[in-house]
Amino acid sequence: MTENRRVKTAIVGASGYSGEELLRLLLVHPGVELSVITSRQFAGQPLGQVFPRFAHYPQARGLNFVEPEPALIARGARMVFLALPHGVAAELAMPLLDAGCRIIDLSADFRLKSDAVYREFYGHPHPAPRLLERSVYGLPERYRASIQTADLVASPGCYPTSILLPVLPLVQARLVRPDAIVANSLSGVSGAGRKVELDYLFVECHESMRPYGVPKHRHLSEIEQEISNAAGQPVFIQFIPHLVPVNRGILTTLCLTPQPVLPDADARNRFNDQVAECYRDAYGHEPFVRLLSGKSLPDTKNVNGSNVIEIAWRLDARTGQLLIMSALDNLVKGAGGQAVQSFNLMNGLPETAGLL
Amino acid sequence: MTENRRVKTAIVGASGYSGEELLRLLLVHPGVELSVITSRQFAGQPLGQVFPRFAHYPQARGLNFVEPEPALIARGARMVFLALPHGVAAELAMPLLDAGCRIIDLSADFRLKSDAVYREFYGHPHPAPRLLERSVYGLPERYRASIQTADLVASPGCYPTSILLPVLPLVQARLVRPDAIVANSLSGVSGAGRKVELDYLFVECHESMRPYGVPKHRHLSEIEQEISNAAGQPVFIQFIPHLVPVNRGILTTLCLTPQPVLPDADARNRFNDQVAECYRDAYGHEPFVRLLSGKSLPDTKNVNGSNVIEIAWRLDARTGQLLIMSALDNLVKGAGGQAVQSFNLMNGLPETAGLL
Amino acid sequence: MTENRRVKTAIVGASGYSGEELLRLLLVHPGVELSVITSRQFAGQPLGQVFPRFAHYPQARGLNFVEPEPALIARGARMVFLALPHGVAAELAMPLLDAGCRIIDLSADFRLKSDAVYREFYGHPHPAPRLLERSVYGLPERYRASIQTADLVASPGCYPTSILLPVLPLVQARLVRPDAIVANSLSGVSGAGRKVELDYLFVECHESMRPYGVPKHRHLSEIEQEISNAAGQPVFIQFIPHLVPVNRGILTTLCLTPQPVLPDADARNRFNDQVAECYRDAYGHEPFVRLLSGKSLPDTKNVNGSNVIEIAWRLDARTGQLLIMSALDNLVKGAGGQAVQSFNLMNGLPETAGLL
Amino acid sequence: MTENRRVKTAIVGASGYSGEELLRLLLVHPGVELSVITSRQFAGQPLGQVFPRFAHYPQARGLNFVEPEPALIARGARMVFLALPHGVAAELAMPLLDAGCRIIDLSADFRLKSDAVYREFYGHPHPAPRLLERSVYGLPERYRASIQTADLVASPGCYPTSILLPVLPLVQARLVRPDAIVANSLSGVSGAGRKVELDYLFVECHESMRPYGVPKHRHLSEIEQEISNAAGQPVFIQFIPHLVPVNRGILTTLCLTPQPVLPDADARNRFNDQVAECYRDAYGHEPFVRLLSGKSLPDTKNVNGSNVIEIAWRLDARTGQLLIMSALDNLVKGAGGQAVQSFNLMNGLPETAGLL
Repeated sequence: MTENRRVKTAIVGASGYSGEELLRLLLVHPGVELSVITSRQFAGQPLGQVFPRFAHYPQARGLNFVEPEPALIARGARMVFLALPHGVAAELAMPLLDAGCRIIDLSADFRLKSDAVYREFYGHPHPAPRLLERSVYGLPERYRASIQTADLVASPGCYPTSILLPVLPLVQARLVRPDAIVANSLSGVSGAGRKVELDYLFVECHESMRPYGVPKHRHLSEIEQEISNAAGQPVFIQFIPHLVPVNRGILTTLCLTPQPVLPDADARNRFNDQVAECYRDAYGHEPFVRLLSGKSLPDTKNVNGSNVIEIAWRLDARTGQLLIMSALDNLVKGAGGQAVQSFNLMNGLPETAGLL
Repeated sequence: MTENRRVKTAIVGASGYSGEELLRLLLVHPGVELSVITSRQFAGQPLGQVFPRFAHYPQARGLNFVEPEPALIARGARMVFLALPHGVAAELAMPLLDAGCRIIDLSADFRLKSDAVYREFYGHPHPAPRLLERSVYGLPERYRASIQTADLVASPGCYPTSILLPVLPLVQARLVRPDAIVANSLSGVSGAGRKVELDYLFVECHESMRPYGVPKHRHLSEIEQEISNAAGQPVFIQFIPHLVPVNRGILTTLCLTPQPVLPDADARNRFNDQVAECYRDAYGHEPFVRLLSGKSLPDTKNVNGSNVIEIAWRLDARTGQLLIMSALDNLVKGAGGQAVQSFNLMNGLPETAGLL
Repeated sequence: MTENRRVKTAIVGASGYSGEELLRLLLVHPGVELSVITSRQFAGQPLGQVFPRFAHYPQARGLNFVEPEPALIARGARMVFLALPHGVAAELAMPLLDAGCRIIDLSADFRLKSDAVYREFYGHPHPAPRLLERSVYGLPERYRASIQTADLVASPGCYPTSILLPVLPLVQARLVRPDAIVANSLSGVSGAGRKVELDYLFVECHESMRPYGVPKHRHLSEIEQEISNAAGQPVFIQFIPHLVPVNRGILTTLCLTPQPVLPDADARNRFNDQVAECYRDAYGHEPFVRLLSGKSLPDTKNVNGSNVIEIAWRLDARTGQLLIMSALDNLVKGAGGQAVQSFNLMNGLPETAGLL
Repeated sequence: MTENRRVKTAIVGASGYSGEELLRLLLVHPGVELSVITSRQFAGQPLGQVFPRFAHYPQARGLNFVEPEPALIARGARMVFLALPHGVAAELAMPLLDAGCRIIDLSADFRLKSDAVYREFYGHPHPAPRLLERSVYGLPERYRASIQTADLVASPGCYPTSILLPVLPLVQARLVRPDAIVANSLSGVSGAGRKVELDYLFVECHESMRPYGVPKHRHLSEIEQEISNAAGQPVFIQFIPHLVPVNRGILTTLCLTPQPVLPDADARNRFNDQVAECYRDAYGHEPFVRLLSGKSLPDTKNVNGSNVIEIAWRLDARTGQLLIMSALDNLVKGAGGQAVQSFNLMNGLPETAGLL
């Protein structure tokens, strides 16, 4: 891949944790020329001064933050990552698309297909409802073909990725009931973004474990949209997020109900085989899905820094429930890494470019 | 309370985390004369040398670890806390009881009423099955009267306490189905005990979140025993424990199914009131149960170091499920503190003595 | 101690970390009736609602935050703890003293004797310079007698306490040169106070170790004042503070130069004995100073939650330097606990009341 | 770089933290074919099973751990990284060298030039003293030319790297006295290696800060050897290591004495300029040394995961001392990354290959 084949790329909102992770990934991506990075707060300052940790990357030299002006961005880049707060991304998307850019949006702004659901969960009408049809939900393992040709990719949230990847194949194969899903998720503190709020101070988090956002976390809307699609019927999910004092990681545990009911050990053994086969079919060749076997269970320390999601399962013979556990890095497979995966697809690059 | 009214008390196995927590509590307990502390490993050494943190307590002066010999213990103490590994406690209990001691056992050895269930979960016959009838399950909020007169109290495990206190009143009031309980629990690393194993090294835990012990954790046996008793029918529980990088704390989230099904908003409102009333009746006057109201949710940092369990609940209108969340300190309400609560009851002391 | 002998006491600024620690200590102090707690932010709210962790203390019932009005405070309390930001305390002190209150101030406002030094380090003239003479530096191990009769005690900072207690006896005994002291200190994040700033977010601290405030941290002024007093000559100290991802604790390592130079092993042995004797004389009977012997070295986990400072020393035969290491809990011996020690002295209570 | 130009490389002792870090770096190094990985404990097991985190790397496929047999290693690899405990490396080095391998040793076995000093610090004679002359101290910024042609490189320790890189240029330029150096270092827990010992359990470290290994840590020997070389005279260093609850990182703070004494502000200004120039000359073009300017101070979170060392300095006008602060990742610049830097030099690759 020669230098002049690199894709001129912008990161808009490069000073939050997701934006910073995109910087980490794109500064060494062999197919990327990082040509524009924006930040209202740091406009005018060199990248290496704002983030000393990137100062020694050759690509960081001469790179200054600029204001997030659509015209400026479109002049410098063909591909644009939006790492902005929810609501802000939608305002920038239209002018950027009009200017010919292709967009990967890491916010929730374009993940929902229904304006009504958006309004229900976000409390106001969608600012650019027509773009909802145009956007593609950026889960490569599921929407690979559509992503390749999309000009607006809505990269999934970290919780949704940790739930959808394990659940969708089982629901689609009718192995589990879609209407009785309980998802418990633990998130590292970077999942809250770089918010300067009391709740996220070191001392308030360090020896703390706490649920939050129950019973109706915003991410539920995209989780239910995708599971409903796979199930062919509208479903509601029980979802309980928790905040845990680690920097990175999502650990999700799911309770699913096999269907039909498993009457005996034979049926359970057959079901176990079916689950294994279902996952092998869905993910056996996926570079970023690790199906754990033997006694291994997911552990966020084994995925942190990488774009991999780990998945393991156990059928509980006593309760008849299927337990699924997954682990991913909320900033990589749950944000920047998955977005880069879409970037690779959109640009005809190997899907793993810059991610291994 | 004058000095000569203090109860001569022993801690057997005072060098693990539960034993150390008992030391912290009993060294300043106004009704306790800590007369015997045992540790095979540290026998002969002064307390203040093994645990510098206790060296400045007046009661620590002159206190040396001794070998865990029943005759020695019985000579020096009337009340005995056993903070020993599972299986070891059972061997000491009989000679100590024969010698006239009253025992509070923090291990799992005497929590089950059924020898068969013990064998199923612990893999070998119970070493002293006749004591299973004699022991009282040391959950003061439930078995207060029996604890007062018991001579063998089996203090509950940390996970069971975090699940049973929120669940039992609702099951007994028939407000929820006893056969559809999903319990997700997060535990701090001290819950594993002072085990020198790779899994519990700092670096292996620090940026790690992981499930473990699925699908059949040993604590399930006592959880199911107590819920079955309250329900009047045998039940199986879905229980998923997780290890989280904090020193202390259990955070449990429960999904319960209201019964009968709630058809509409009116029914949900009535149910909400019933839950609130049920908890108020059960715990409104309990000194160590904090029912959270308003927007508050449990947080382990608000209970660490104290004997309090926090409980909050939310009815999820979308799924019809009742979410219960609880938080406690695994070493206090989940171990040493709850044991001291039983101690107070057994000795006619105020139940909160040494715990506020 | 009967109920009506309890001293009516106020905490002004009870919502920061130092104020919260005072709450923890005073709610169970046998000589205190906590009658007034102030907080601009939480005025009107019950204590148990703002800090759920205190809700179950009997003394917390009925206690509401009020505005920090001097008249209101003076009406309700004879003793007043000021746990306010630097500069704010000075404004409240005069009206409270005029109203007959005795004050223990946890800020830096009254620690310096020299208005000029205050101006040099704090950048503005002292708002109440005449009070500087009236105040007593609240280091009980050094100024016990003066504290007993003071009506304005300036409780020392956490860094100064960790440095002064080990250094002062050696300087006073002329065992070390006062003009060649290097102090490296590590502080937990609560030392920064409950400041909602980017630098103290969990993610910014969790895997971070960093120096800060070099070369001229404000605490230097009180450290140098006290060491100069002990030395009988003005001295400058090399002091380098670091931020470390723990909630609590100060760990200080000091390099001192013995005087005169130690020519040989015999001289070193004699010097070692002199240091031991010096410390034994100074602190052998102090309830809150733990002189470590044998191979033990200070560890913040052994002092956290207690009012104890640990001190150990090693003479380095290769460099001829004396290394001193100390550990304390910045919120207890470094703030609230030491203030309570002064409170006890001021009120004729046992010095350890409420602290053991 | 085509596939057949990759250098066949072995990691001996690939299951400790340094070995694991070498795996992380070498699995994606463009010039490396990782052909042999050894571990007594895991011999026969696939890499991806022992370390799930590496399972998805293409290079990890088919890679199994083998026994550390010299003949086996030499058959499969030309370059050998030894990531073994001290003492064990020396035994393997001779047969591997005899078999024609070139070695990069991450242990302390070949860092000292003097057998006598080795004996003093390690308590026994060196097992292969003749190799001490043959080895090159693997600090690329200092011994680049010698490393290129060496067949036995002794990669420096983490503490020494954090001290030597900032100190050597100043000592060599005679800007500071070589005989009055005080070095305080804070280390993350991975610095202790994957040792299953009580001291390194999560609960024992999590809220702990502690000095250790004073006054004569083994790393002093190589620090003093190198500074003595630069100074042209034997010197002793005051070195105080501390253990801090982070996974990775070394933060070092140095107090140095300018020479000659700086009489006034002018002299201090000139000295400041000289220090800046000295560092610019030494490191202005080094890819892995980041000289911080302005208000920036080193922070381990800005170097973790990278091969960079950050250096900042402040002249303290009050004490006349020069403060130097450095930060590096103990597993990268302090171990595996620096070893890879030497590997690149030894094989004519760009020095930054696989490290950016």
